[in-house]
Amino acid sequence: MAKTVIVYFSGYGHTKQIAVAAAQAAGAELVEVDAEGNVPEAGWATLDAADAIIFGAPTYMGSVPWQFKKFADATSKKWFARAWQDKVFGGFTNSASLNGDKQVTLIFLQTLASQQGGIWVSLGLAPANTKAATRSDVNNLGGSVGALVQSPADASVDEIPAGDVETVRLYAKRVAEIATRLHG
Amino acid sequence: MAKTVIVYFSGYGHTKQIAVAAAQAAGAELVEVDAEGNVPEAGWATLDAADAIIFGAPTYMGSVPWQFKKFADATSKKWFARAWQDKVFGGFTNSASLNGDKQVTLIFLQTLASQQGGIWVSLGLAPANTKAATRSDVNNLGGSVGALVQSPADASVDEIPAGDVETVRLYAKRVAEIATRLHG
Amino acid sequence: MAKTVIVYFSGYGHTKQIAVAAAQAAGAELVEVDAEGNVPEAGWATLDAADAIIFGAPTYMGSVPWQFKKFADATSKKWFARAWQDKVFGGFTNSASLNGDKQVTLIFLQTLASQQGGIWVSLGLAPANTKAATRSDVNNLGGSVGALVQSPADASVDEIPAGDVETVRLYAKRVAEIATRLHG
Amino acid sequence: MAKTVIVYFSGYGHTKQIAVAAAQAAGAELVEVDAEGNVPEAGWATLDAADAIIFGAPTYMGSVPWQFKKFADATSKKWFARAWQDKVFGGFTNSASLNGDKQVTLIFLQTLASQQGGIWVSLGLAPANTKAATRSDVNNLGGSVGALVQSPADASVDEIPAGDVETVRLYAKRVAEIATRLHG
Repeated sequence: MAKTVIVYFSGYGHTKQIAVAAAQAAGAELVEVDAEGNVPEAGWATLDAADAIIFGAPTYMGSVPWQFKKFADATSKKWFARAWQDKVFGGFTNSASLNGDKQVTLIFLQTLASQQGGIWVSLGLAPANTKAATRSDVNNLGGSVGALVQSPADASVDEIPAGDVETVRLYAKRVAEIATRLHG
Repeated sequence: MAKTVIVYFSGYGHTKQIAVAAAQAAGAELVEVDAEGNVPEAGWATLDAADAIIFGAPTYMGSVPWQFKKFADATSKKWFARAWQDKVFGGFTNSASLNGDKQVTLIFLQTLASQQGGIWVSLGLAPANTKAATRSDVNNLGGSVGALVQSPADASVDEIPAGDVETVRLYAKRVAEIATRLHG
Repeated sequence: MAKTVIVYFSGYGHTKQIAVAAAQAAGAELVEVDAEGNVPEAGWATLDAADAIIFGAPTYMGSVPWQFKKFADATSKKWFARAWQDKVFGGFTNSASLNGDKQVTLIFLQTLASQQGGIWVSLGLAPANTKAATRSDVNNLGGSVGALVQSPADASVDEIPAGDVETVRLYAKRVAEIATRLHG
Repeated sequence: MAKTVIVYFSGYGHTKQIAVAAAQAAGAELVEVDAEGNVPEAGWATLDAADAIIFGAPTYMGSVPWQFKKFADATSKKWFARAWQDKVFGGFTNSASLNGDKQVTLIFLQTLASQQGGIWVSLGLAPANTKAATRSDVNNLGGSVGALVQSPADASVDEIPAGDVETVRLYAKRVAEIATRLHG
């Protein structure tokens, strides 16, 4: 079994809730980016040892929060040494709007993975997009690049749509499986 | 009053329905890209005379349909002559999923407008993204770059969510107003 | 050894030249999109049988030419049936300018691959970006998502910078190797 | 004459050098994001009073540095109040590679401007992309969405290619002129 790590930043707890659920589904370890954008040394060691890294972050003002970007900037050391070459990558993002420019966040995450010489795993799930579809369905938002979550602006961490959480769980499992086929 | 033109391609009638509603709201002329990706000579003359051009297209497989791209490729003559320099631009897109990679279409449309030396008008509307929000609200999808429409896969042209149609109408009006301030 | 296929459209011969060089390096088969945007039945069968598909197209007006988009639209049948799920994907693009919005093309190609449930392989090469670097160096353009080629507007097919061609060759080989590890 | 402001972050001095040159050309004020990602109160007041805001940032790991993102996140207050609605926006970015995923930075900046209800001004310059073109030519990189600068990895602040600096100067002047037409 490949080693999968979810590295995430959570501003208000929603992304953490999702990251924990995804980690359970995929047998993944969690590394948290703190409020100052830092990751402890042990976290970096965990990431270095990973076969697959899943990025998790909310979308703020059209991209990841600055704390997650500070983490991304710090990965320039890995980039310089080609230390993460050929790792498997994926990403998920959460914001209050159905669209909310979440795709711009995913494009950034995909680019970051590419700079590291990575291999990106798509969502791999058909969308639920008929008139009968609901927010409880898997991939109701109809993403493809990574996993999308929409938590209404006034939703608590326990009110994240079930279909979106399940989408991230299935995706994390998929990333881990591809990593096992490639690196296991 | 500035002259605003909506140039669109519609595969199954939904985008046409939206384009017609937007044209009424904004006092805009319509130019249709046909099933072979062509625009008649009169259509090109209308576009050349426009102060503002709004692109309208569904999202198929992550971007505009090939017919709209054929139109975009044909605008290379305008690009070469800098003939559309400083025109005002906007864009809207429709697809069956709430997200459905619509943003990748908007990024392309925005890039096309930039290649033409254009000025891009954002949606300019706050999102409706609380728990109480519905698909009848203006900007319920939470776009910002342009106007987003989601018509479920089995929805007829009369079943496009009212909030999304109204969003495009308000946006087209906004583009026309900005063009009037800039070119009027 | 995995089966790798390069599917490409070439308007003036440059992309064809690059595709042929890449196919030799990677032991890949070639499928050409014709001037009307069509692929013969045999080409579709070749693509269906592929473990890895590399997209090749110039950048026209901020994305792939309409002929390549027509091919992309036709892959909606594969999408609907999830027929290309888990295939390995990559992409390269050529245009006359050093930048020339080539990245918007790659973002589209990456999105197309994601819609098909694919796994995207990054370029995986460090950039040559010091003062001493030349257009003969590998990855002098400094891409990461896929392979970038710049052929000056007045360059013949024999005048494509050697470093860019070599970059695509190395990339195609890399995509084939990842596919062999995953599917071989 | 409209009031134009350039808000920038500079890690090693190159972006500052470019920002200063652009401000001179466009008669713009400068607001610097500091090493902790903060802008002083007076800077926010300057931005609030601006008719046009030009974003300037290097590209680090596929987007703006975390310090600039911290500034962008702080503009959420303006977003919430729609305080920057209808302002004119533009952006430039610098990195060591000719491409270097600079476009992903511009797409983010354009999205940020859209979230604020802004109007984005394209570069508006034809590319210099023949065999005879050099790095001293205006728009030799061939951008369109905003202004692109490439400073080799070992270039001092005095070794930024002259053509790229002139490109940013012409662009800043253009943004100011469009703002004057719209708001003057």
